[in-house]
Amino acid sequence: MSEKKQKLTEISELGEFGLIKHITKDIKINHKNTIKGVGDDAAVIDYGDVCSVVTTDLLVEGIHFNLIYTPLKHLGYKAVVVNLSDVYAMNAIPKQITVSIALSKKFAIEHVEQIYEGIKLACDKYNVDLVGGDTTSSLTGLAISITAIGEAKKENIAYRSTANKNDVVCVTGDLGAAYMGLQLLEREKEIFKTNPGINPSLEGYDYILQRQLKPEARKDVIEILKELNIKPTSMIDISDGLSSEIFHICDKSDVGCKIFQDKIPVDQNTEKMAEEFNIDPLTAALNGGEDYELLFTIDIKDLEKIKDHAMIHPIGHVTGKEHGAVMITNGGQSVALQAQGWNQMKKE
Amino acid sequence: MSEKKQKLTEISELGEFGLIKHITKDIKINHKNTIKGVGDDAAVIDYGDVCSVVTTDLLVEGIHFNLIYTPLKHLGYKAVVVNLSDVYAMNAIPKQITVSIALSKKFAIEHVEQIYEGIKLACDKYNVDLVGGDTTSSLTGLAISITAIGEAKKENIAYRSTANKNDVVCVTGDLGAAYMGLQLLEREKEIFKTNPGINPSLEGYDYILQRQLKPEARKDVIEILKELNIKPTSMIDISDGLSSEIFHICDKSDVGCKIFQDKIPVDQNTEKMAEEFNIDPLTAALNGGEDYELLFTIDIKDLEKIKDHAMIHPIGHVTGKEHGAVMITNGGQSVALQAQGWNQMKKE
Repeated sequence: MSEKKQKLTEISELGEFGLIKHITKDIKINHKNTIKGVGDDAAVIDYGDVCSVVTTDLLVEGIHFNLIYTPLKHLGYKAVVVNLSDVYAMNAIPKQITVSIALSKKFAIEHVEQIYEGIKLACDKYNVDLVGGDTTSSLTGLAISITAIGEAKKENIAYRSTANKNDVVCVTGDLGAAYMGLQLLEREKEIFKTNPGINPSLEGYDYILQRQLKPEARKDVIEILKELNIKPTSMIDISDGLSSEIFHICDKSDVGCKIFQDKIPVDQNTEKMAEEFNIDPLTAALNGGEDYELLFTIDIKDLEKIKDHAMIHPIGHVTGKEHGAVMITNGGQSVALQAQGWNQMKKE
Repeated sequence: MSEKKQKLTEISELGEFGLIKHITKDIKINHKNTIKGVGDDAAVIDYGDVCSVVTTDLLVEGIHFNLIYTPLKHLGYKAVVVNLSDVYAMNAIPKQITVSIALSKKFAIEHVEQIYEGIKLACDKYNVDLVGGDTTSSLTGLAISITAIGEAKKENIAYRSTANKNDVVCVTGDLGAAYMGLQLLEREKEIFKTNPGINPSLEGYDYILQRQLKPEARKDVIEILKELNIKPTSMIDISDGLSSEIFHICDKSDVGCKIFQDKIPVDQNTEKMAEEFNIDPLTAALNGGEDYELLFTIDIKDLEKIKDHAMIHPIGHVTGKEHGAVMITNGGQSVALQAQGWNQMKKE
């Protein structure tokens, strides 16, 4: 890199989302079958009978995972699941994946086998074909790049940009557990580092650990929505935290949003762990990330249809843009949501 | 990585191709629209009117490129081109790409801009839409993962596995130049390391440097074959060296192959450089890699059609499997080709 003594700008000044926006601001789309490019959970390509949705994620050791406490099999599984989650978030069905892996010399064949065991397990569970990829060396550490390809009819695809005023805002499952699982693993890692004699105490924390180490994608919810004949008016998956995803929907749909604190689903295991850590469980739910639940909006006429489905929670409604994205607290106050999200590139 | 004291096997014992074979040996394909999975230049998915071909490559700093002599813009360009080359090698037209990048703290916004300048230049030149990707941090160095998506009618797709006995073997352009370009860059790097006062002498070596740093994919050849109404009976792109690719075609098609030394196209710039380095230019052509030319077979009835096309060279013909893959030297000897290729994972 020959620097011409130009002034350089640190990436942290923009953060991940800012950098992506900056880089992609002048991108041209030339093919009319490219229905959706950058800016949603996945790109959409029109093939006539059916549309293909394509999404990709690059996971890097030391940034997205720590091998001190991440079993390689779980890592392979999770790497697939996070991509499938993006396909489901388009209201599409994942069908194929490609997997590229870069490995440093510290990895042996047996390690690669464990990673692929997890990858194949996820492929079996979600009925996805592993169709290609790349295997290469790296100087340090492990990187996994997965591309997932799904299918949907054009009219069924759900975007971030199509929420309407008065739509009901829903989330699936519960939030914040993956974040609390990460806190627990980090704590036990530190204890182990200073006192290698003490065994990590992870018993009784199965739920939050599983949510962090071996998350699932919401295939079931996409199937239920289809059965109920509901097409979400907008949808996104929750990978960076509820707040951040609500901001994406509001930004792309040009709307505001009002959610209610007492409607945000938090599991009792998450609450218990948060108490132990003296963290507000609400913070974990809003800004924790890695939950891989779905956030979507539905027309108010469809509200009745979801009421018997315990894993789908209405948490608020879409408002006009002028109202911004707010949460009504249990005390009745209206507070602006912070789009902090999970952003390793941004300065603290 | 908790090792249970099991015996571990170094990846170098299998090498890249061996590892891929090992990992993918028990992969099941469940969707009937997955026409081709692992084992060709790209996967093939049938969407009814048209097929999609999908290929992916992961490029890692210090393994695939050295930033001491690789301009970031060229790197971005090349990262796209190597993927497009795989799409053309299926006799398909690339339409979309996704780009994922992992960056360590040594990179500034301006560096990312340079990489994307090259990426966008390649997109413009090859008429490809940039439709998505991922941008993330890394602890050390740069990694670029690109997925390219192309289109072709089902009946036009060319595989590695369908060469027939007596077909004519063709290669495009010339071979070995990218390898000689790399040798030159490595030499100048070493000189510069020991004598920082001496400026690199790269003048007059434009051709081989361009072949290494800013290669092109053979879009033109795919267009010519279409105009000439020739469907290759098999095809592969030359990324690991002619020998290695011939072995892939022979292996997948269950055939042998006879090529002639005096027919292998080598540019005079490559020959000149090889002489300076005391390397046999034939070695560069057979085992050098990174040429991104096409190797394909055609029915003998089509031979007449290509004779006016200076960049398409018939170099031999397909034989029975029992004859193996051989080269007839200028002295008339028959020598077995070595499938050495370019394999960073294999022990020397």
